Amino acid sequence: MNSYSQGCYLGVLGGMGPLAGAAFALRLAALTPADADQQHIPTLLRNDPRIPDRSSAHMAGGENPLPYMVDGVRFLERAGAQLIAIPCNTAHLWYDEIAAATRLPVLHIIQAVIDDLRRLGLHQGRIGLMGTAATLKLGLYQRHLEAQGYECIVPDDEEVERYCMASIRAVKGNQLDAAFAPAADGIARLKARGADAVVLGCTELPLAVPHALRPSLGITLTDSIDALARAAIAHYLADQPEQRIAA
Amino acid sequence: MNSYSQGCYLGVLGGMGPLAGAAFALRLAALTPADADQQHIPTLLRNDPRIPDRSSAHMAGGENPLPYMVDGVRFLERAGAQLIAIPCNTAHLWYDEIAAATRLPVLHIIQAVIDDLRRLGLHQGRIGLMGTAATLKLGLYQRHLEAQGYECIVPDDEEVERYCMASIRAVKGNQLDAAFAPAADGIARLKARGADAVVLGCTELPLAVPHALRPSLGITLTDSIDALARAAIAHYLADQPEQRIAA
Repeated sequence: MNSYSQGCYLGVLGGMGPLAGAAFALRLAALTPADADQQHIPTLLRNDPRIPDRSSAHMAGGENPLPYMVDGVRFLERAGAQLIAIPCNTAHLWYDEIAAATRLPVLHIIQAVIDDLRRLGLHQGRIGLMGTAATLKLGLYQRHLEAQGYECIVPDDEEVERYCMASIRAVKGNQLDAAFAPAADGIARLKARGADAVVLGCTELPLAVPHALRPSLGITLTDSIDALARAAIAHYLADQPEQRIAA
Repeated sequence: MNSYSQGCYLGVLGGMGPLAGAAFALRLAALTPADADQQHIPTLLRNDPRIPDRSSAHMAGGENPLPYMVDGVRFLERAGAQLIAIPCNTAHLWYDEIAAATRLPVLHIIQAVIDDLRRLGLHQGRIGLMGTAATLKLGLYQRHLEAQGYECIVPDDEEVERYCMASIRAVKGNQLDAAFAPAADGIARLKARGADAVVLGCTELPLAVPHALRPSLGITLTDSIDALARAAIAHYLADQPEQRIAA
């Protein structure tokens, strides 16, 4: 019997958005090999929606979310976390500053996605990107993917607005049904441009494109919520090597 | 524009089980009237699976979960919660003791379900019950429903094992696909016995019977996760009466 639960809390800095933070906790539990409650990873989710909008800060001079995120990570540290996960891609524009503000290891969502591409058998190739305007404009994925041997296919500004941001805003406004079509259209365009896989590189997008509908899209998808959950589970396994055998 | 987020945290004592705790956070966000992240309820989910099994404690002399639950509620109180929700029906067998251990209001999941029956237009009638053996054996729902003018239809011990516990254990073991059939069969039997509605009175059961499949069952269902989420949202609305008009 494996038991991650002897470890301390996984601290989750959520609320960016709240549906994505909760979906991360759900997928974490769903992807954890466990036969009973007591074998799951103890998790502390601070799903605080008051963190100022990350995209607005970068694209439109909005309030800086960094002090709120640092406050959140330190809250989780004080509460007993041993590891931090941040289920928001755009927040990773401040990754270095957040990681410097805590003594805890902080999972990196972009690296988690690249690890997930490898798990799916993609060690090179052309990766289509979906995400917020800020994430794509500032090259968050491009930088990491290109450094690790991938090419990127990036939507232009109008496509980001029409396919990514329209879908993301629908999820943030609790209109999940309206979120699917623009995301699916965006994925189809990236596929037509030669993508071998598409990254759902904003944590709202996995909610826009439910698992059940993904096979119909005819392309490999990697999902930044699931990828981050898998990275957290792998970290707990690595911390408890005797469990690796049992799992 | 409404904004629940000026309030303090909703503290969620989760982990019983972890999938149910996370699903509660997800449904809370999904059911909250909100157009943007910043309008959601700040939530602190302590999804700690180390709490000893509630059913075992009541039915088989297992370790008493009460000290763990009290510790969890006090943790949430120290962390800044203003209200407590416990997305586990069986845990409510200890409701009085938990509520006495904190100065915070603690939502009562059984009352939330009864309020949800009324929201659905059912002010009396025969209510079929699904839940853990401990919840049903100790009359948790029966006591509250009968005091408020309902009749109860309760599965016998063999039915509880075959239809409720089989489904609950499948969810706790992350086998959601295997969880549907026994729950659906149990609901059909309660319907055949004359139930006007069926209560999914264990927080694993809403995961066994996904929203999309419910209309096919041909009977009114109330879901203890959604009911508790609605009760939490109503509490935040009541605390901010100026928002009630806007919502």
